[in-house]
Amino acid sequence: MNVRSLALVALAAASAASAQVSDTASSYGRIASELLRTGLPRQGAFRLLEQLTSRAPHRLSGSAGADTAVALAKSWMEQRGFSNVHLEQVMVPHWERGAVEKAVLEQRGKPPVALAVCALGGSIATPGRGISAGVVEVKSFDELEKLGANAAGKIVFFNRPMDPALLNTFEAYGGAVDQRSRGAIQGAKSGAVAVVVRSMSLAVDGVPHTGGMSYAEGVKKIPAAAISTADAERLSRLLGSGAPVRLRLTLSCRTLPDVPSANVSGEIVGSEKPDEVIVVGGHLDAWDKGTGAHDDGSGCVQAVEALDLIRTLGVHPARTIRAVLFMNEENGLRGGRGYASDERRRSEKHTAMIESDAGGFAPRGFYVDGDSALRSFVNRWKPVLETVNAGRLLPGRSGVDISPMVATGVPGFGLDPENQRYFDYHHSDKDTPDKVNPRELEMGAIAEALLACMIAGEGLPANVVTRPR
Amino acid sequence: MNVRSLALVALAAASAASAQVSDTASSYGRIASELLRTGLPRQGAFRLLEQLTSRAPHRLSGSAGADTAVALAKSWMEQRGFSNVHLEQVMVPHWERGAVEKAVLEQRGKPPVALAVCALGGSIATPGRGISAGVVEVKSFDELEKLGANAAGKIVFFNRPMDPALLNTFEAYGGAVDQRSRGAIQGAKSGAVAVVVRSMSLAVDGVPHTGGMSYAEGVKKIPAAAISTADAERLSRLLGSGAPVRLRLTLSCRTLPDVPSANVSGEIVGSEKPDEVIVVGGHLDAWDKGTGAHDDGSGCVQAVEALDLIRTLGVHPARTIRAVLFMNEENGLRGGRGYASDERRRSEKHTAMIESDAGGFAPRGFYVDGDSALRSFVNRWKPVLETVNAGRLLPGRSGVDISPMVATGVPGFGLDPENQRYFDYHHSDKDTPDKVNPRELEMGAIAEALLACMIAGEGLPANVVTRPR
Repeated sequence: MNVRSLALVALAAASAASAQVSDTASSYGRIASELLRTGLPRQGAFRLLEQLTSRAPHRLSGSAGADTAVALAKSWMEQRGFSNVHLEQVMVPHWERGAVEKAVLEQRGKPPVALAVCALGGSIATPGRGISAGVVEVKSFDELEKLGANAAGKIVFFNRPMDPALLNTFEAYGGAVDQRSRGAIQGAKSGAVAVVVRSMSLAVDGVPHTGGMSYAEGVKKIPAAAISTADAERLSRLLGSGAPVRLRLTLSCRTLPDVPSANVSGEIVGSEKPDEVIVVGGHLDAWDKGTGAHDDGSGCVQAVEALDLIRTLGVHPARTIRAVLFMNEENGLRGGRGYASDERRRSEKHTAMIESDAGGFAPRGFYVDGDSALRSFVNRWKPVLETVNAGRLLPGRSGVDISPMVATGVPGFGLDPENQRYFDYHHSDKDTPDKVNPRELEMGAIAEALLACMIAGEGLPANVVTRPR
Repeated sequence: MNVRSLALVALAAASAASAQVSDTASSYGRIASELLRTGLPRQGAFRLLEQLTSRAPHRLSGSAGADTAVALAKSWMEQRGFSNVHLEQVMVPHWERGAVEKAVLEQRGKPPVALAVCALGGSIATPGRGISAGVVEVKSFDELEKLGANAAGKIVFFNRPMDPALLNTFEAYGGAVDQRSRGAIQGAKSGAVAVVVRSMSLAVDGVPHTGGMSYAEGVKKIPAAAISTADAERLSRLLGSGAPVRLRLTLSCRTLPDVPSANVSGEIVGSEKPDEVIVVGGHLDAWDKGTGAHDDGSGCVQAVEALDLIRTLGVHPARTIRAVLFMNEENGLRGGRGYASDERRRSEKHTAMIESDAGGFAPRGFYVDGDSALRSFVNRWKPVLETVNAGRLLPGRSGVDISPMVATGVPGFGLDPENQRYFDYHHSDKDTPDKVNPRELEMGAIAEALLACMIAGEGLPANVVTRPR
């Protein structure tokens, strides 16, 4: 692209907005433009992200890094003069990866081949020398069931890729992740001795992606690990060639007793209705691969930056706007559940819950998690949200941490960033801050700040919970 | 982010569309969904981009690489069975960077410091030993004028950054690029012996960004170069400290006689109105830094992929859809002008011109370049375009290559991708295919294919050219 005249997007969008809005809404238009003018040059969210990912790079629930992250987040809120800064204690699971994780292909007459592997979060260890067994590949639980006794004594290899034909990568993730989350249960039911899962990523490369998995009451616990997508394709080709293949899986991970941890909370107290609360949140814990820059360091720093932008602008919201950085989204949801059940909630009314937990990419809009009256009410803000590139309002689930509150009828909002690159990095060594663009990250904080200001000023209609949860 | 239920974006958007559209439009909805299903898994655009950037990494007009790119693009169209594949010859400028480009800070009693520099495209060379002179820093032409005789004999350093407060980075670029494009003219008028310009980038790093510059009749030609943003800040600090600073600039670039080159054209002939044409284009030339992956390898491969997707789907458009890869956008616009003035145009009617020249990032929509009747007509397609994430339709300029045709009244459409990262890479060594996400790139091709199909099927209202050009 060469020198060219420019389409004045911001002006065009602002004038589209002003054509159909009241004085109130045009004051939100001014807030929107001030948020851009203040946020984009300072890139406050990214500065916090650099601190978080360097000082607490590994912050899985129960770890020393998680404690560091809690203390750091509290200090951010205190330094910025947030009100009522405090921790809300929750007990969290404590799983550790351990030093050893190996998956080695053993073929007769050939040298062993090491695959890129990592334990899934929550897996039990193998015996010290590992588990060596033949491998059966399946694409689904149905296929596994059809194998009948043929899976007994084997390592089951789940190799159904995320569907690349789906535009929404979260939908593609949702269509594949059962293999990771319930593979060990289904594998054990079929008599398998362990499971390995193709990493949940649309990129074909050598990096394994971890993530949560679970066991079920009454079903034998067997070890579970993810291999890289490239190694999944390699293993599949080998099996397809009919070569007799054994895999030796060695994991030294372990689950320790629950430990205390905390959600971190701080707020701007509402000037008119201080007991009515809009929460802006993300989760402070992250998997112990990479540094959780997108998942969900981004959501945490955006929440803090959103409140700090509102403070810096000198906006005095009628209702309270609260940043909550939740603990333990990845393997327990203890923070989200703890927040909802904490006795402090008894004296408060929650107007809305906003979460960013889909990456620090440029926003497209928000998922609106509530009934049709709520969605139609919120649509009045579309023109103003469009001025910060976040005007797409779609019905959908808002966020995992806030879901216990949303389930009680509180309207939920999930920041919806561009998602094509997200799963390339997610839960892997690639989730580091160099994958985050400082301006895109700030745009998310700006979108959240703007939405929170509008909700704080205007309130929301009562939400009727109709969807099954 | 953990296991979660998913908002079915595609379904929601499709149902929003179907509520307000005819059978015709719902057939476009089906085309949209087929384009996604076919394009996203195969990533055809990215495969072409890898070829282009590896076989013709440097393809500035007049270079051997440009010839290679022309031949390669023609072969793509032939291999895919496009109709009427041919070259349309144009004469193009031939500027060469040369082997030497240096900018060295000379301070008394200190070792010389080399800055990261590159010649601006079109600059004359310095004498072989370079030009050594004192430096004056300005932020604008006004400021330069106020310096009066104080700029005489000096190197003028233009250091006004792109405005980081603007959400639209193209607007920020437009507000700063006069320094690069006309700095040498204004500098010479003030008696300067050379100019150096802060690179046009929002990132502060050590990589210089080239780009076009011009001279004016009757004004002395002086050498012009860009230094990296990090070095611009360093130089500015030094000058601000009052230290006596000289800069020695050495450039060996040169302009050779014009040479023949060509636009590359191929099409799907319309089944009902073959002489009515929708062009989908990009520019094949690129600056000789990096490999022109975003600027504008992306636009070229998207045009070819858009037509190939339409062919693959078995869609038979009523009007002709033509891919045109233009030569010489960066330093002459000879291809765009040549296309408009070619005698072949006399027997054709152009229904629309579509260009992608703003990077290979995920699309948000299109700029619609025409009158209000056109914009309001096109808005009927917004719901369908939203199903491919390209539903934002804003008034604005469409593209440089197609501007000569648009100036004659042909409706123009410019693909509008997310633009936050674009100028970090633009015209620099960083513009390489690893900065392009294959799915995001394909989404642009899909959006163009869909828009072209709808225009080919429905036509467009006559466009009245009212804006001054």
